[in-house]
Amino acid sequence: MESNDRRDFLRAVALAGLAAELRAQVALPTTAEAAIDVTRKLARYVVNAKAADVPAPVRKEATRTLLNWVGCAVGGSRHQTLDIAVAALAPFSGPAQATVLGRRERLDILHASLMNGISSHVFDYDDTHLKTIIHPGGPVASAILALSEYRPVSGRDFLHALILGVEVECRIGNAVYPQHYDAGWHITGTAGVFGAAAAGGKLLGLNEQQMIWALGLAATQPVGLKEMFGTMTKSFHPGRAAQNGLTSALLAQRGFTSSNQGIEAKAGWANTLSTKRDYSQIVDKLGETYEISLNSYKPFACGIVIHPTLDACIQLRNKYKLTAAQIGSIELRVHRLVPELTGNKAPQTGLEGKFSVYFAAAAAIVEGAAGEKQFSDKLVRDPAIIALRDRVRITVDPAIHEDQVRATVTLKDGRKLEQFIEHAIGSMENPMSDSALEAKFTDLADGVLPAARARRLLELCWKVEGLSSAADIAKAGAV
Amino acid sequence: MESNDRRDFLRAVALAGLAAELRAQVALPTTAEAAIDVTRKLARYVVNAKAADVPAPVRKEATRTLLNWVGCAVGGSRHQTLDIAVAALAPFSGPAQATVLGRRERLDILHASLMNGISSHVFDYDDTHLKTIIHPGGPVASAILALSEYRPVSGRDFLHALILGVEVECRIGNAVYPQHYDAGWHITGTAGVFGAAAAGGKLLGLNEQQMIWALGLAATQPVGLKEMFGTMTKSFHPGRAAQNGLTSALLAQRGFTSSNQGIEAKAGWANTLSTKRDYSQIVDKLGETYEISLNSYKPFACGIVIHPTLDACIQLRNKYKLTAAQIGSIELRVHRLVPELTGNKAPQTGLEGKFSVYFAAAAAIVEGAAGEKQFSDKLVRDPAIIALRDRVRITVDPAIHEDQVRATVTLKDGRKLEQFIEHAIGSMENPMSDSALEAKFTDLADGVLPAARARRLLELCWKVEGLSSAADIAKAGAV
Repeated sequence: MESNDRRDFLRAVALAGLAAELRAQVALPTTAEAAIDVTRKLARYVVNAKAADVPAPVRKEATRTLLNWVGCAVGGSRHQTLDIAVAALAPFSGPAQATVLGRRERLDILHASLMNGISSHVFDYDDTHLKTIIHPGGPVASAILALSEYRPVSGRDFLHALILGVEVECRIGNAVYPQHYDAGWHITGTAGVFGAAAAGGKLLGLNEQQMIWALGLAATQPVGLKEMFGTMTKSFHPGRAAQNGLTSALLAQRGFTSSNQGIEAKAGWANTLSTKRDYSQIVDKLGETYEISLNSYKPFACGIVIHPTLDACIQLRNKYKLTAAQIGSIELRVHRLVPELTGNKAPQTGLEGKFSVYFAAAAAIVEGAAGEKQFSDKLVRDPAIIALRDRVRITVDPAIHEDQVRATVTLKDGRKLEQFIEHAIGSMENPMSDSALEAKFTDLADGVLPAARARRLLELCWKVEGLSSAADIAKAGAV
Repeated sequence: MESNDRRDFLRAVALAGLAAELRAQVALPTTAEAAIDVTRKLARYVVNAKAADVPAPVRKEATRTLLNWVGCAVGGSRHQTLDIAVAALAPFSGPAQATVLGRRERLDILHASLMNGISSHVFDYDDTHLKTIIHPGGPVASAILALSEYRPVSGRDFLHALILGVEVECRIGNAVYPQHYDAGWHITGTAGVFGAAAAGGKLLGLNEQQMIWALGLAATQPVGLKEMFGTMTKSFHPGRAAQNGLTSALLAQRGFTSSNQGIEAKAGWANTLSTKRDYSQIVDKLGETYEISLNSYKPFACGIVIHPTLDACIQLRNKYKLTAAQIGSIELRVHRLVPELTGNKAPQTGLEGKFSVYFAAAAAIVEGAAGEKQFSDKLVRDPAIIALRDRVRITVDPAIHEDQVRATVTLKDGRKLEQFIEHAIGSMENPMSDSALEAKFTDLADGVLPAARARRLLELCWKVEGLSSAADIAKAGAV
């Protein structure tokens, strides 16, 4: 009897399910949403876009995006995360087609995409599209730099593909943010795969139908759960997004079919992965606005919440040539998120140091910087920095916005030095200057590339539009 | 003013998002759900499971699963979908480590996993775990057959890994079905990646922590939206799931870290991809029940809804040695889903023929079979079959269950022949016999492998447990 009940149950669920599967195979219902033809419009734009139509300031920002991305990838290239990924997967790599920036290994273009995407994100120091928290450079640049070593790509076309890839991933991100992110997805990987597919597809010369398929193949391969934050798998996300997107473009080029409505269909990407779907964010004003113009770069290798504090401390240090020994105390009037997110008073590791406003402020005073090198286990345990760290006090002030701080340093001689930060360096209102980006790049490349090589790589990035071959950048970034 | 508004807006959304990202990085909250430790329990079971503990009937069903999967992969190996995938990706393949069943190309094990997974699903003729509609063989067998060509794996260990991989993917599927499927996910790809990771990890000898990481890496790489049904991308799903799962196991083996709660955490797989999460389905009675025992195989190369009709028509044909010329009409009393899903009266292509009960019944009478060969453009356009097809009538009968049919053939001489099907062949109550599975295998291999080679491959599958090297199966399936 129990056996019969179980059989009936199994039959009922099985047939219900199979019916659903069959229904989906027989006819894909056209919904009102699907009628917007989001995927086709986006594909058509990418296919028809011309580099000459992109305004100069947009191209300039794209160049800065490239420069920042290359620096982060070179800087992260010796991280254990990459050592492990290369050791695990190199035995399955194809021909030595493409560079892993900052390393000796040359891998096939799909594996190189993965590795460069990992290294560029491993310090959490890469670019940020603030509207969606997508880190747009990684998925796109990783894919197309590798592709540039496999087939001829001019610097101009490369930069244009970067712009288009960022456009696609950020527009799709805009359509679903923040609900998609809140649901658990690491949006850099889930939207990034579209960017890589679009940019790779553009360089492969896909036609409209092929580009639609590439986006469909991207839709079916989202990467990244937020649960992975704090593990090596976080930086795997932009790398795998690059690899999946490039794979999508290569398959579509050969005629591998996919849905024509991968983004907007009833069982497509947006409906399945998000409760919010604002398709106007994807299709409106294509070619008129550029999301890459909104890209931002981190001057400090930690969460953005303590950037105002770091900015203030470094300015005070430089203005008054401060040393730790002179300082009696540091008082910071901050936004409430600062203690909430970075309230660790006694961090034990470099990584924990990124979540300690106390350590970060002290290190900024002592070192005059807060790059990846400052967030080291060594510095976190340095007695002089610990002593200063313990003299940092914070007060939450409702009048202080998230990107502000009011820092007061009281010297042992009684003097009080004050610095108010209205918008931290690296914010959209106060972007990093070209020379600050260069300094960040140089700092990241230090110890990985010889100084002359790093300089040359930097110069190639700046003049990318004039390069006859974008692969020159990859070659200059190899060891 | 407008510019300021926009800035404020951007800043607000950006900081809210960054705060969320930072919060997720600082501390992963332990929820009540997380406390169940689902991922760890599942990983521990897989790591500690012993082949000797698996009951003989379970191992027998696993052997049938293998046989059916190999047949489907060989049969699908010449499909255009695979031609395109191989052409697009072979230039990036690593060393010739593993067989693509039914083909000449040898690829690295990751690409071979992808290809075999595609070909085994391309006819929609593979196995079905009826509780979840997961097609369990593809993701798991594709991964471990390739791995068996890279490192020594006995047939016994291979079969055990297949059993464990199917256990993992189907248990995870049980925990979220049907809501996960209804949401838009192609569950074969989204759950299958766990099966491939677990089975591959078992053969790699991962310890508990490594297995947990492998499952976490699998969690972050789900593949497959239902929107892709009807395109080549559908069969890409089990292939990519195999590839992603095997990649996960290889990374974890080297120490690539991931979440310890990839399945059950707040921003983990189950919460992000499903509204239903019944973790007891994953952790209860591990080692006591085996999901592979519930596996089923399709005797006919079409949706399961018309399998009772095909069963009845073939039985009548064989019993009475019927020819189309004798037949005046065919009346079918059917479940309502039959016209709903397969009501196409005049299909034009082989694929459309799969959705026409009229064509299928006529073809079954004329051909005595309904394999992939019967669903051809040629047969769909055959005048004799069309003439018989047009003499098929169906009536929905509320007394007829989904896996039943009452077929009445009225001969031109006035005789009436009747066949009632209680449970169609291939259902759990009336499973395909070993010899029927053999016939299906032979039919699929026909035209791909020489008959003697197909016979040998079949025999190797039956005696898998006695093989000193599971790779013998792959080698026998190469061309």
